[in-house]
Amino acid sequence: MTDLVTFGETMLRLSPPDNERIESTDEFEVRAAGAESNVAVAASRLGAEATWTSKLPDSPLGRRVVGELNQYGIGTDVILGEGRQGTYYLEHAGKPRGTNVVYDRADAAVTTARAEEFDHDLIGEADCFFTTGITPALSPTLRETTGKLLQAAKRAGTATAFDFNYRGKLWSEAEAEETLTALFGGIDLLVIATRDAREVLGYEGDPRQIAHKLGSAYEFDTVVVTRGARGALAWHDSVVHDHDAYETDTVDPIGTGDAFTGAFLARRLAGDDVPTALEYGAATAALKRTIPGDIALVTREEVEAVIADESGEISR
Amino acid sequence: MTDLVTFGETMLRLSPPDNERIESTDEFEVRAAGAESNVAVAASRLGAEATWTSKLPDSPLGRRVVGELNQYGIGTDVILGEGRQGTYYLEHAGKPRGTNVVYDRADAAVTTARAEEFDHDLIGEADCFFTTGITPALSPTLRETTGKLLQAAKRAGTATAFDFNYRGKLWSEAEAEETLTALFGGIDLLVIATRDAREVLGYEGDPRQIAHKLGSAYEFDTVVVTRGARGALAWHDSVVHDHDAYETDTVDPIGTGDAFTGAFLARRLAGDDVPTALEYGAATAALKRTIPGDIALVTREEVEAVIADESGEISR
Amino acid sequence: MTDLVTFGETMLRLSPPDNERIESTDEFEVRAAGAESNVAVAASRLGAEATWTSKLPDSPLGRRVVGELNQYGIGTDVILGEGRQGTYYLEHAGKPRGTNVVYDRADAAVTTARAEEFDHDLIGEADCFFTTGITPALSPTLRETTGKLLQAAKRAGTATAFDFNYRGKLWSEAEAEETLTALFGGIDLLVIATRDAREVLGYEGDPRQIAHKLGSAYEFDTVVVTRGARGALAWHDSVVHDHDAYETDTVDPIGTGDAFTGAFLARRLAGDDVPTALEYGAATAALKRTIPGDIALVTREEVEAVIADESGEISR
Amino acid sequence: MTDLVTFGETMLRLSPPDNERIESTDEFEVRAAGAESNVAVAASRLGAEATWTSKLPDSPLGRRVVGELNQYGIGTDVILGEGRQGTYYLEHAGKPRGTNVVYDRADAAVTTARAEEFDHDLIGEADCFFTTGITPALSPTLRETTGKLLQAAKRAGTATAFDFNYRGKLWSEAEAEETLTALFGGIDLLVIATRDAREVLGYEGDPRQIAHKLGSAYEFDTVVVTRGARGALAWHDSVVHDHDAYETDTVDPIGTGDAFTGAFLARRLAGDDVPTALEYGAATAALKRTIPGDIALVTREEVEAVIADESGEISR
Amino acid sequence: MTDLVTFGETMLRLSPPDNERIESTDEFEVRAAGAESNVAVAASRLGAEATWTSKLPDSPLGRRVVGELNQYGIGTDVILGEGRQGTYYLEHAGKPRGTNVVYDRADAAVTTARAEEFDHDLIGEADCFFTTGITPALSPTLRETTGKLLQAAKRAGTATAFDFNYRGKLWSEAEAEETLTALFGGIDLLVIATRDAREVLGYEGDPRQIAHKLGSAYEFDTVVVTRGARGALAWHDSVVHDHDAYETDTVDPIGTGDAFTGAFLARRLAGDDVPTALEYGAATAALKRTIPGDIALVTREEVEAVIADESGEISR
Amino acid sequence: MTDLVTFGETMLRLSPPDNERIESTDEFEVRAAGAESNVAVAASRLGAEATWTSKLPDSPLGRRVVGELNQYGIGTDVILGEGRQGTYYLEHAGKPRGTNVVYDRADAAVTTARAEEFDHDLIGEADCFFTTGITPALSPTLRETTGKLLQAAKRAGTATAFDFNYRGKLWSEAEAEETLTALFGGIDLLVIATRDAREVLGYEGDPRQIAHKLGSAYEFDTVVVTRGARGALAWHDSVVHDHDAYETDTVDPIGTGDAFTGAFLARRLAGDDVPTALEYGAATAALKRTIPGDIALVTREEVEAVIADESGEISR
Repeated sequence: MTDLVTFGETMLRLSPPDNERIESTDEFEVRAAGAESNVAVAASRLGAEATWTSKLPDSPLGRRVVGELNQYGIGTDVILGEGRQGTYYLEHAGKPRGTNVVYDRADAAVTTARAEEFDHDLIGEADCFFTTGITPALSPTLRETTGKLLQAAKRAGTATAFDFNYRGKLWSEAEAEETLTALFGGIDLLVIATRDAREVLGYEGDPRQIAHKLGSAYEFDTVVVTRGARGALAWHDSVVHDHDAYETDTVDPIGTGDAFTGAFLARRLAGDDVPTALEYGAATAALKRTIPGDIALVTREEVEAVIADESGEISR
Repeated sequence: MTDLVTFGETMLRLSPPDNERIESTDEFEVRAAGAESNVAVAASRLGAEATWTSKLPDSPLGRRVVGELNQYGIGTDVILGEGRQGTYYLEHAGKPRGTNVVYDRADAAVTTARAEEFDHDLIGEADCFFTTGITPALSPTLRETTGKLLQAAKRAGTATAFDFNYRGKLWSEAEAEETLTALFGGIDLLVIATRDAREVLGYEGDPRQIAHKLGSAYEFDTVVVTRGARGALAWHDSVVHDHDAYETDTVDPIGTGDAFTGAFLARRLAGDDVPTALEYGAATAALKRTIPGDIALVTREEVEAVIADESGEISR
Repeated sequence: MTDLVTFGETMLRLSPPDNERIESTDEFEVRAAGAESNVAVAASRLGAEATWTSKLPDSPLGRRVVGELNQYGIGTDVILGEGRQGTYYLEHAGKPRGTNVVYDRADAAVTTARAEEFDHDLIGEADCFFTTGITPALSPTLRETTGKLLQAAKRAGTATAFDFNYRGKLWSEAEAEETLTALFGGIDLLVIATRDAREVLGYEGDPRQIAHKLGSAYEFDTVVVTRGARGALAWHDSVVHDHDAYETDTVDPIGTGDAFTGAFLARRLAGDDVPTALEYGAATAALKRTIPGDIALVTREEVEAVIADESGEISR
Repeated sequence: MTDLVTFGETMLRLSPPDNERIESTDEFEVRAAGAESNVAVAASRLGAEATWTSKLPDSPLGRRVVGELNQYGIGTDVILGEGRQGTYYLEHAGKPRGTNVVYDRADAAVTTARAEEFDHDLIGEADCFFTTGITPALSPTLRETTGKLLQAAKRAGTATAFDFNYRGKLWSEAEAEETLTALFGGIDLLVIATRDAREVLGYEGDPRQIAHKLGSAYEFDTVVVTRGARGALAWHDSVVHDHDAYETDTVDPIGTGDAFTGAFLARRLAGDDVPTALEYGAATAALKRTIPGDIALVTREEVEAVIADESGEISR
Repeated sequence: MTDLVTFGETMLRLSPPDNERIESTDEFEVRAAGAESNVAVAASRLGAEATWTSKLPDSPLGRRVVGELNQYGIGTDVILGEGRQGTYYLEHAGKPRGTNVVYDRADAAVTTARAEEFDHDLIGEADCFFTTGITPALSPTLRETTGKLLQAAKRAGTATAFDFNYRGKLWSEAEAEETLTALFGGIDLLVIATRDAREVLGYEGDPRQIAHKLGSAYEFDTVVVTRGARGALAWHDSVVHDHDAYETDTVDPIGTGDAFTGAFLARRLAGDDVPTALEYGAATAALKRTIPGDIALVTREEVEAVIADESGEISR
Repeated sequence: MTDLVTFGETMLRLSPPDNERIESTDEFEVRAAGAESNVAVAASRLGAEATWTSKLPDSPLGRRVVGELNQYGIGTDVILGEGRQGTYYLEHAGKPRGTNVVYDRADAAVTTARAEEFDHDLIGEADCFFTTGITPALSPTLRETTGKLLQAAKRAGTATAFDFNYRGKLWSEAEAEETLTALFGGIDLLVIATRDAREVLGYEGDPRQIAHKLGSAYEFDTVVVTRGARGALAWHDSVVHDHDAYETDTVDPIGTGDAFTGAFLARRLAGDDVPTALEYGAATAALKRTIPGDIALVTREEVEAVIADESGEISR
């Protein structure tokens, strides 16, 4: 039996090595990357049985994505069909250049995925179903599919978790607000960045106030509000729990939020309380930033060493 | 003043190094690749002033394509607009695996290019305008644009050259036949592979017979029929001239035909006769196969050393 | 349900890139490599549900092996325990240097694996259980374990397949002969190289005669005798079927035999007759040689294109 | 028509990857590098039509330099002749090792370049002619050529700009002082590092005082005094304008000054006032430090985002 | 004649590039690494004639280790025999992941090295013999050998130096304490980390107090107590001398202590006083941290530039 | 005591990887390369104590050359002085492009080396002194030095060996003939390529006839005439011995002749007869061609396996 099923697009991420520019590079490093598969891997690393479900082209590119995710130990349940393999080009840089992303994900196979194509038993028998606000942004079909799968989970008694994840390169704030708030009724656990809560949903106040407002405005069981380098807080049972981010030497910031969310979910599904889950989330996120790629390829022992403040030296 | 203007799509070519499989590679080598820019570079290397014209996305990917082609010394006259950067994934292998290509070029920026967007003076003032059968296969818009640009060249007294280049992954043989033969009236120099002449146009007989038949069926000035590893022949003034391929240690076979065509055109534009141009074409094609990438990064001296049979040893 | 379960050691293979020497290299390419996991992947690629079972150290090295094999789509059922991760150093070279292997596999975790540690249901519910003559060569414990697992398979009605695979760097010919012939009674399908049959078992005659002799000397259902570059033949129901090797541009010869065996087994398990299985085996083996690493990362479509003689050109 | 023509040596820069030492590296990364071509590229990136003119050997090495610079979009007007391709070996390191340069540029082709070899129309029709104090340091011939080209520019009404750029590995401070101050009469815009003003020219005081002193001592239109990590200031019309450096995560410090100068020149040539040009210069310099190689491969949009303080986050 | 002979194991160090994880890397960088050969190279770089002596397998792996050390300019006097080549896997990471080491050094050839196998004249004619607390931790045989070689040195009037170097992955603190303190009587110069003095030997107080206590408890001529990022101090003639660490941009922290010790020894052997030797030690250690690999590939000029505070800028 | 001392320039060889062109490469592989050090290494690999002596710049580049040669196990006795580090750029390619070399060795430090600078005892106490026709081609000073060192060897009773090695990129055939034949009186063993004997010295006839003519024209003890892919023959005591080249899969042809010569010399110095030495020479040359770089990094066991025809298969 599966603890967690996640649903969403996984792209190939193509990035020049060593801070080179896309404009002049002769080489791309290639990795599988997608919020929902990132979350599945992080959850799996923290002890959950996790499966990622999606639709990919029946091509060496689609097979490459599935193969890489299998490597990290999660289950994969993928429809192979028509359409492109979504890609994104990533250029790493520090200040003031910053990391830049060029999406090339239009018409990806996943954009045609209808709810009927998926294995509803897989979702129904899981403890939790997870997707993000990226999925409905990808196509009208996916907008519908996202809603239907959330409803199917709900009907089957499977808990639902959702990361708001607003992407300005995919749709406008107004579209996102309308579409995503319409889904809020079917969601048990919401994860949202402070910036998205403010700029897309129009909430004011500090993250703590935003958490309370969101918690009381909808029927959420839990609301997690993330604050970038300043950690995250979680509203649950009308109480807000808070955890700072751990100090980290960042090698690759992409996927930090997904690492947090995957670990938080895994520990909640394993029965840990909210403060403990926040702790695991923050430690996993900090470790992720030391690892190249989108994915938190950590062990539970490493995460617990961060929490116990025993890591960071040479171990020999 | 420009001797040769070529028009067509240039893609990013993404290929795993060292015979690795796309399915498991962690790295892609990236290069600019497109029949018409390949031809422009080969022609330029053999002494022609060559400019490539096209449409690309206004993004680091589009700029990367233009930059690489500038590096090889040709002129570039490119509209930067909306749409994707076409890509293709290339997996190199010897027998029996063979080299495999996965196109990801749908909705490329070039597919929306209308004739009016281009600089007609550039074409009109050139000695020769060149495109291939790939261009009209990419979109209905490009089908129309190809015809209009060929007509514009004709009207301006610019000679026209065309490589048939049938691509089975882009359209059916029937579509190709109908579309391309409709363009034949506006073409002075046709290059066509024996296989395409047989399977798409239905010609029978050996390459020599096919050349004669094509030469007499249309108003071509010259018809070049290529025979893969067995060289090429050219019909001109009712005479067929023949040249064998040179022996070569192949490192990358892609772009061999374009190298041949670019060199043949350059030497014809420089006033050489058909047998001489065939010789340069064959030698450039042989050198191309020793060079990684689509492009014939050769010098005229190297080509002439091949013709003079003086190359292939260690020169020190 | 699983079609094929394989059991044996998988090592990390460390090889200098680009024909460099171990003595002066600054870099090793690293891949998972082991006869039994190679066979499982090849079988899986040709349509079988295949699972590899083994024992590995509970370390990043052990996890790396499991991860890579998961990537290729097979099931992995691995005991994580004490002991080393076996490695081997591989230096590629052509004539006259030849490819050289330096084993560093003593005291690998797998050498302590006892039959009781494994999931007998996994073996009992499979259609076929496979291991090789390498496994009992690794330790006295494994000698016993190999025998017990073959017996367990037999008792459960699971067919047994065995590749003789004599390794002169692991044990003497006399030891191998004594140990392996003692196992022959429990084996349904034997794969053996002509050289091993001659030099280790003392059989004389051509491969066809050897196949007949082996077939009548023991209770085998099938005996496959391989002939290196000259293909393989299979004795079954007192008839010998023969298939030449396909022509191939070799990039990496290691794993050729395992590719053959995996594909042969998969097609036999799928109900194909012996000549057809030989055909798939030979085609998979030929493709393997074009792929870096021990593993036949092929598709069934590619294998069938080799059989149909449609591969080897540029496909675009 | 060209806005800016720059003249000087461009070398091949050979650097070990990843902080390796020259003494033990097995690999060099290779890039084109030279103060005057660096300035041309930076100016071009900020909107100027820029052409670099020089002399290089007629060899694959010389062609490599020209090709790379063409790639970045500037014009190149190069005499191919006898002599070596100048190279320099660069070892990157942080504190306390520091970055070290080993020049191998003696007898480079450019050292024989006489003023008569160059296209005086190119210089005469440009808005501005630029070279640096490195050029006359390379050979007596170049000392003369530098003077003549500055005079030719002056005569044609082309503005002249000059970066003092003292290089202690090329000549003594006394030689530099004598040679370069003799050129000051023909220079409109001088760029000089505080350290050079102090140690080579003997000016005392803070950078602001130095700017005033230099401005009143000669007939300069503008004097820019750079202060390393503390930005730059510019004296113009007896007023000194000042701009701090932007914070930056340095990947490669080489070329920072050239990036500043190229951007400053481009904006001045485009009609911007001195404070605005300083702002663009500082932002371009900061971006340069995030990019491997000597060259500021930036876009105007990126520079303006730095000025507007909108960069440095993940953009997706 | 040799100034310094060092004795101990040198391993192959296998590390994924660019912060990759062992669990998913496809490549290892490979280097020779061992405390005693590290010390020999550092000493040699600072002017000592140094020879490293050990036992290695007679294989390409053993030859690779010797070859790399020869490259750095030390003498090597190595017995080639039976046994494994010790290796270790190193995963670099910043906070909070930290650098992790997986040893695979059991049964290395060196573990069987008996004192009689070595060239006692080499040791007897040297000024100083050096080994570390790692050597006796590797096998009972080496425990005996270490003691015998120290005695042989003593008998021949060769000074003895010893780095305590406790390795928790090799033996317990109790075993280390018992074994190593039994050797203290034969040691002239002891180097020990504050942490080891506290946790293994049970000393209390600050490093200065520990140095005094160790100095008076045994017959040491000199006791060096290292304090990680806070430098080192040395007790000699009842006086404690102190030196801070230099600021450094760390690329690879492994081998810092060995760089310190090698430089300290070299300068003491050359007749410098203790404060000067501490200065050289600290500067060499700081430079080491900017260099990939275990080894301090520095020059004496660089070390002296650090001491004179003249390094760290771009030198050109 | 040393068996063989060789004298000559060693360059840094810079070559693009994977058949890339110098004109477009972004990376050079770097190796030490020089006929005389190549010969020393090959001789050392075949059992001779060999030392290479030369002059190099006192820079990281010079140290890199010495370090790499130390790595291969030879002695190095090098004067560090003024001047450049010679380099050469090497572009590998198969037919018809061929391998191309661009020398950049003018004004190398070695060109100023005078006989007095070298250790005459080193030469005088060796069994054999070796240099090649490249050395006197590099400068007038070296022309004189070569003569003096050969005389010094002669006077000391050290045998002299000389490889004619005409390099058309360094001097004319007439100059070479005049200079080198003037040295013939002081040479015991001459190695010469058939092509050089014909084109530079004007000998006619087949290699066998050339050997006889050279043998009788001068006072040589032995004359070896090489025939490229067709092996070599040796005139000694008026008899010509002949040996074919071994079949080889060539990865890098540079250094084949030096490998032959080094092995031939080593075996002659060890007392083997001429036919045996030819055998070792041919086998070492064949192995060299499978190894990247100029240098024959072989073992004696491998060479003897080639002679015994036991190599070329996978050894495991």
